[in-house]
Amino acid sequence: MKKGKLYGIGVGPGDTELLTIKASKLLKTVDVICSPRSAESKPSIALTIIQPVLDEREDEYEIVDPLFPMIEDKSELNLYWDHAADRIERRLEKGLNVAFITLGDPTIFSTFAYVADRISKLGFEIEVVPGITSFTGCAAASGISLVEKDEILVVVPKVDDRLEKILPHADTFVIMKTSRHSEDLERIIEADEREKTIFSVQNCTMPDENIFKGFSKDKKYLTTTLVKFSPDKKD
Amino acid sequence: MKKGKLYGIGVGPGDTELLTIKASKLLKTVDVICSPRSAESKPSIALTIIQPVLDEREDEYEIVDPLFPMIEDKSELNLYWDHAADRIERRLEKGLNVAFITLGDPTIFSTFAYVADRISKLGFEIEVVPGITSFTGCAAASGISLVEKDEILVVVPKVDDRLEKILPHADTFVIMKTSRHSEDLERIIEADEREKTIFSVQNCTMPDENIFKGFSKDKKYLTTTLVKFSPDKKD
Repeated sequence: MKKGKLYGIGVGPGDTELLTIKASKLLKTVDVICSPRSAESKPSIALTIIQPVLDEREDEYEIVDPLFPMIEDKSELNLYWDHAADRIERRLEKGLNVAFITLGDPTIFSTFAYVADRISKLGFEIEVVPGITSFTGCAAASGISLVEKDEILVVVPKVDDRLEKILPHADTFVIMKTSRHSEDLERIIEADEREKTIFSVQNCTMPDENIFKGFSKDKKYLTTTLVKFSPDKKD
Repeated sequence: MKKGKLYGIGVGPGDTELLTIKASKLLKTVDVICSPRSAESKPSIALTIIQPVLDEREDEYEIVDPLFPMIEDKSELNLYWDHAADRIERRLEKGLNVAFITLGDPTIFSTFAYVADRISKLGFEIEVVPGITSFTGCAAASGISLVEKDEILVVVPKVDDRLEKILPHADTFVIMKTSRHSEDLERIIEADEREKTIFSVQNCTMPDENIFKGFSKDKKYLTTTLVKFSPDKKD
C-alpha cells in the first residue's frame, strides 16, 4: 500500500487570506490536520487561522493536536516531539496524508523541524509549503520596507550577547517575541547612535492587531519588533 | 471623486500557487496591474507568475510596465522611479486601484519601496500585501529549516566586508543573488571552521528549479544560497 505524505504547511501570521493558494488546496484535501497546542486549555492559533478553509470541506478529516508545552528542558521536549511523530507515523503508515500546520513559515523558528526530522528518518516523503513570515507581515502592517539595496537584515529570536556584536554591522533588525526581554532590547538598541525607526506589532494581521511606534510595553506573546536604521547615517 | 488605492503585492518566488488568497483576489479585481521590467525585451517574471490568475478575469484591466533598468547610477534610477510613480499617480487620481506586483515580498529588496515612497508623499492610500520570500521558498525546496530555537538569521544581498564581521555571531546565512559574487562568498564561508550545510537554489519553485549542495557555479540571476552552521559546533 502506498504510504502517506507529510506536508509542513505555513499558515502565515494570522489573516486567513494570507494562506497561499497551495496551502488552502492542500488543507481541503489532506486526511489529517496536525496542529500542536502549547497548553491543554489553549486553542491552537494556527488552527483558528485555517478554520474558515476547513469549514468549506464537506468530507471527513481528522484533527490531531499533540501537546508541545513551552518548556526549556530538552529531554522532556524530545518526549513530546517523539510522541507527536508517533501519532503522525501511524497515520502515514496507513496511507493517510498529514498536514502539520505552523504559524508563519515552517522553516523559521517552527517546531515542524523536530517532527520532520523524525518522520524523515523513518523514510516517509515530506513536502514543505512556505508561509508568510510574521516579520514580512509586520513590515507590511507598519508600512515600512525591511531592506533595500545593499542593506543587511538580521532576525533574532531573543536578546543575547550576540545581538550587541552584530548590531553595528547591520541595517534592519527583527526581534521575534520581544515581550520576553523588552528592557534589555531597548537598552541595546538605544545605545546605537544611528537614527532609527522602531515599530512593534502585536497579533499581526489578526482582528486585534496592534501597531505602535517604539517598543512593546506589555507582555503579549505574539509581538514582533522591527528596528530600521537610517541608510544615510550608517557607519 | 474617490481616489484610487495602491497595493504593493508580493507574488512569491515563482509558483503561481504560492500567491496568497488575498493577492489572488486583489489581482482579479484591481483596475491596473503595474509590473516593472528590467529590459525592454524581457518579460517580467512577476507578471508571468500571476498570468494564470489574470487569465481567469473576464473584465477589462490595464497593464502598465515601466522600465526599471539594472543600473547603479542613483540619479538616473530616480528618473525611472519618478516616471513610474507619475504613471501610477495619473491612474489613482482617476479613482482606479493599482496593484504593483513584486517578486517575493514587497518589503524585502523590492523596488516597490521607492515607488511607494513617492505615492505616499502625494497622499494616496497604500496597502502592502506580503508575499512568500525567496529564502523561505528556497529553504522549503531544499528541505532544511532556516532557524530553530535561539539561532540568528542573517540575510545579505551582496558580499561585502560586513559579512565577515557578522559571520562568527550568526547561525544561518541567506545570500540573495549569489551569482554576482560567488568566489568571494565561497572564500569567506569556507574560512569559518564550523560545520556547515550549504544549498543553492536557482529559479526556486519555477518549472526549471535547480537545487544543489554547495555554491552555484553559473551566473543565473535568481540564485539564492543558504548556509546553515551546525548548532552543536558553534562558538
